Order: sequence, then structure tokens, then C-alpha cells
Amino acid sequence: MRPIPLLQLGHGTIGKELFHQISLQRATLRSTHGIDLAYCAVATSKEITRYDQGHARHSPYTGWNQLRPLLKELPHAIVIDVTAAPLTDIHQEILTAGGKVVTSNKKPLAGTMNAYHALHADTRRYRYETTVGAGLPVISTLQDLIATGDEIEEIQGAFSGTLGYVCAELGKQKKPFSQIVAEAKEKGYTEPHPQDDLGGIDVARKALILAREIGVRLELSDICVQGLTPDEIAGVQDVPSYLIRLKNLDEEYARRVRVWKQKKSEPRFVARMTREKVTIGLEGVPADSPLGRLQGPDNLILLRTQRYHDRPLVIQGPGAGAAVTAAGVFADILKVCTLFT
Amino acid sequence: MRPIPLLQLGHGTIGKELFHQISLQRATLRSTHGIDLAYCAVATSKEITRYDQGHARHSPYTGWNQLRPLLKELPHAIVIDVTAAPLTDIHQEILTAGGKVVTSNKKPLAGTMNAYHALHADTRRYRYETTVGAGLPVISTLQDLIATGDEIEEIQGAFSGTLGYVCAELGKQKKPFSQIVAEAKEKGYTEPHPQDDLGGIDVARKALILAREIGVRLELSDICVQGLTPDEIAGVQDVPSYLIRLKNLDEEYARRVRVWKQKKSEPRFVARMTREKVTIGLEGVPADSPLGRLQGPDNLILLRTQRYHDRPLVIQGPGAGAAVTAAGVFADILKVCTLFT
Repeated sequence: MRPIPLLQLGHGTIGKELFHQISLQRATLRSTHGIDLAYCAVATSKEITRYDQGHARHSPYTGWNQLRPLLKELPHAIVIDVTAAPLTDIHQEILTAGGKVVTSNKKPLAGTMNAYHALHADTRRYRYETTVGAGLPVISTLQDLIATGDEIEEIQGAFSGTLGYVCAELGKQKKPFSQIVAEAKEKGYTEPHPQDDLGGIDVARKALILAREIGVRLELSDICVQGLTPDEIAGVQDVPSYLIRLKNLDEEYARRVRVWKQKKSEPRFVARMTREKVTIGLEGVPADSPLGRLQGPDNLILLRTQRYHDRPLVIQGPGAGAAVTAAGVFADILKVCTLFT
Repeated sequence: MRPIPLLQLGHGTIGKELFHQISLQRATLRSTHGIDLAYCAVATSKEITRYDQGHARHSPYTGWNQLRPLLKELPHAIVIDVTAAPLTDIHQEILTAGGKVVTSNKKPLAGTMNAYHALHADTRRYRYETTVGAGLPVISTLQDLIATGDEIEEIQGAFSGTLGYVCAELGKQKKPFSQIVAEAKEKGYTEPHPQDDLGGIDVARKALILAREIGVRLELSDICVQGLTPDEIAGVQDVPSYLIRLKNLDEEYARRVRVWKQKKSEPRFVARMTREKVTIGLEGVPADSPLGRLQGPDNLILLRTQRYHDRPLVIQGPGAGAAVTAAGVFADILKVCTLFT
């Protein structure tokens, strides 16, 4: 059994967890799957750690641009990108050279349409399940439907745990919007600046990846994202001031939720994708629909297709977190391994 | 591009639909995936149809035992079993000879534990996604979790569209049990003899396959299935008499549903699998749980694992029907195709 070399880019919470999961599972995979995963190197933006016969050797370096010699050193490695860095060029170069990439980094696929086409040319060598819904089987399910000739009519999704939490709390009608956001920040549910969640840009990137998957040609700038904050608040850089300014929205959100509740609807931050358009924003959705029944921070994706027309296919669960994201990357790596046999 | 030969066993509703889907998609797969799927033969229990350069040639034969010469003729074919026939031996022989099988026929995997082990030895060459939940990504998701080292703590499932319908109607408290079943039969939702649904044996087979997937060693006879009918009714062969006898259960089911409703629970026919035990039967489940929120005939599988512990992974949608089942078989075929490159 020849070892399959792994080169990991990034060593944050997901990267550390992935390294841990693969180390724990290595012996089992050797005996049950005949797959021997061998870490050759882990690179961060600051240093490279090479692994050789169990020995780790560190060498400092100065940024991702110096990655290329390492890639040349390891032409057969599966390159794992668990960074959030702008590594589109690196991905492209690896694929052009015939290499294999597994990425949880959604930036390259959410870049220009040209870059997308280059990356998406051979999806057996380029896997990105965790870019939408973390470990939930979203991309693979969609790819299976498309490959077998199904027509995707509509995708609905709740792709932000943070906004899911905010919407669920809004729906309870107990706390004003600004307090809900402040508490979410306190509990560590939000990005350092809550606007990075409330603006909906991360949801837009995921919607872009899914829309492109079903064949729509569009750029991130083509997507109309209705974030939870108007421009004059969205631009406030100082977080304490930002949180205070959110109070100006409390009354309006309370009013909108009241109206929705009267119609047996629940507030949800929804991404909708069809071949014609992509819309992202806060909506009132029927309380007895899959999105309306969604609770708390769970993600949900609903696929309505020619074959799943009357009753859609729905996948639901946590769409973030180091353990489930790393596991999703790990599963992608195992799929790429089938190309080695 | 070398054509990948297909040999299909069975030509019922799923088999016809699969043949249709593959024919429609063949040109697209050639250009987008570099895969050329070529039907060589379709065998039913009565005749073999060989395809050669677009010409179909029929030859009668007398049962599955005469299949072996055909298998020898086509040693590299992906064998597709869309029958409900007892073809365990055939599956085993194909795998032993190094062949590849995709099956929607759940009988072989729900046979003896010995047969299961032989079939399950190399899951890259033996695919059976559609044996549970039709086209829903149930088996593949479970296999990914296990391969990456997750611990499966519990699986909950609603695996019968028919029983899902009966439970949903019971929960409405508008019609007696016997009337619900009679109407389901009239609408074509049940097997010719409704006991084949109400007894829960099909659910037990699916639960057996999932329990074995998570490493439990057990036989079908080890599973305690609490069907919806007591033995003295279950044994009534004449359908009209059977339906009349069901009236004896109306009062009891109405009473049980009343009690559950008082506790904010809903009647559901649930399969529960852990490493310790498998239970199948009618339960009252909390109305605000994933199973409780399930509507009508949809299937649902809930995976609670070490990584999906606080919030489980849930997959939901139609778990029967020719189009979605054939599409699931088709997706399995495409996965097996990666072994050809």
C-alpha cells in the first residue's frame, strides 16, 4: 500500500482538528479501506512544517507566495486548503499541473467566473463539499442530481448559523433586535465585527457557489444581498458604536415580525437560487414549511427538482464548527483517494 | 473513451425508468464527465435482451439460474440489480470474480450475516444507496461519517411512506385506523396486501442494513418489530376480510393517539438503531422533534453522532418512487465508474 501524501494549507481550528482526526483514523483506514494517508507538510502563512518518518521539521517563510517550491516538491500530494486566504491562483496552478485539491476555503470558488470555470473543470480532482453547510452532504447531493440528469428548479437555503440564531430569537418576540445581536456577540456566535454576519456576504458566497453549480453564470456583485443593516449602520467600524446604532432598527424589526406572525410566518434569512435569479435576505416564511420549522443555528438546504418536485429533498443540521467541517474535508479527501487506485 | 458496459437485472418500474434516464443522459455524460455508459443487456426473470450497436436481440430463458453464462460473457460490466428477487448468490459470485454491483434490491444485504460480510467486503465495488430512503443520501452519508472516524450514537428513521401516511392521518384524529388503511389501499399507497406494509417487515430490512452498517452483528430475526396489527389479524390472507378485521383496532389506536396528543406528541412508525439494540414500532414522538414535524409520506433519517451530538444531521424527502430510486441507482453507477479510470 503506497502512502497517499497530504499537504495541508492552514492550521487554525479546522486545520488542527483535521490533522487530529486523520491521525486518529490512519490505522483504521489502512486496514479497512487500504488507504494510507501520510501528512508530508502543513503550511501556514508563517511557517512550513515537514513530516518525515514521524519527525517534524519547521522552516519559517514569508507568505503564501513561497508555497510554490513546496508544491513542486510534492506533485502527487492531495493539497488541502483549510485557510480563508486568497489562494485562487495556487488552486489553479495545482489543477493545471494535474494535482488534486480539497478545500473548505470558499473564496476561490466565489471569485470571478473565469476562475470558477478553471477550478470546476474536473470535480473529481477538486472537492469543496464543506464550502456550503460544512459537513452536510450538500454539494455532493446536488452534483449527483445534476449528473444523473435531474433539473434543479429551486434551491432554498439557510446558510448562516448566526443569522439562524438571530431569526429564531426575533421570532420569539421577547428581545429587541439590538439586544439579540449584542448577546450573540457576547456568546461568541458572531464574527469579531457582527456586521460580517449581518451583512450576509458569507451567505452570498455560498449561494454563488450553489448557483454556479446549477449552471448560472454570475459574479458575486450580481447578487442582491439584503443584509440586516442599512448602509449607514453597516459602515460603522467601531463595534460598540455599531451595536448602539442597531437600536435604531429595533422598532422596525419588531413591527415586521408582528406582521409575519399574524400570517403564521417566521422570520428567516433565506437564500433562494433558481436558474433565473438569486435573492438573499430576511423573509417571513410559512411556519409549517421546512425553513419555518428550522430551529436555532442549524443550516438547511432544500432542493426542489423535476424528480423531487412535489416533495423536496431537505438536508438539515449544524453548518459550522471545527469537528463537522474537518470531517467533511476528511470525507472529501477519501473520495479523492479513489483516484490513486 | 472506452464504453463502460452495463448489465441490468430487472425491468419493472424502476428498471424502465433507469434505462430511460441513462439513455437521455448518455451524451451529456460523455461530454461533461468523460463517461460512456453502454447497456449490453437487460435480463428479467423471463428473457434476456442484448444490445449490440443499437440493435436489441431478445432471447427467452427460464429463470435467474441461467444468468451465469451472461455474467461470464460480460465480466467487466457493472451489474445493476433493480429486482426484488433472491439474488444473494449471484451478487456474491460477481464480487468474488472481481466484478461490480449496484443494487436497489435490499434482500441480499438483509439476508444472513455471513452473506452480508461477503457483500460488504469492498463497498467501492458494491453500492446500495437506494436500499434505504431511495435516492436520499443516507448510506453514503453514514459511510462518510464512519470512514472519517465519527462514532454513531443513534440512528432514528421513518422509512415507510405508507406508514408515514397512516401515522399522519392518525394524528389528525379525524378517521378511524381501519378507514385510513382502506383509503390508502384504494389510493394505491399500499402493497397489494396492506399487511406487507403494516407488518413493518420492509422497515425492519432497512433498519437491519443500517444497523449492520454501524457494525452491529445481527439477523433479521433478532429485530423485534412491533407491527401495527396483532398476529391474529396479520395472518388473514383475504384482503377484504383483513380490512374488516382492522376495525377491531380502531378504538385502541384512537385511545393511544389521544394520550399522545395530550403530551404534545405525534404518532410515528419509528426505527431506532444503536450499537446495543434495534427497535421498530409505533411511538408517540414530541411534536417539535424532527420526526414529529415530519409530514405525510416523506422518509426521514436522523443521525446523532459524536460530532453531530447536540444537533443531529437530518435528511428528509420522498423515500420511494421510480424516478428518485432510479436516479439514486444511476448516481451509484457513476460512483462505480470512477473505478474504471
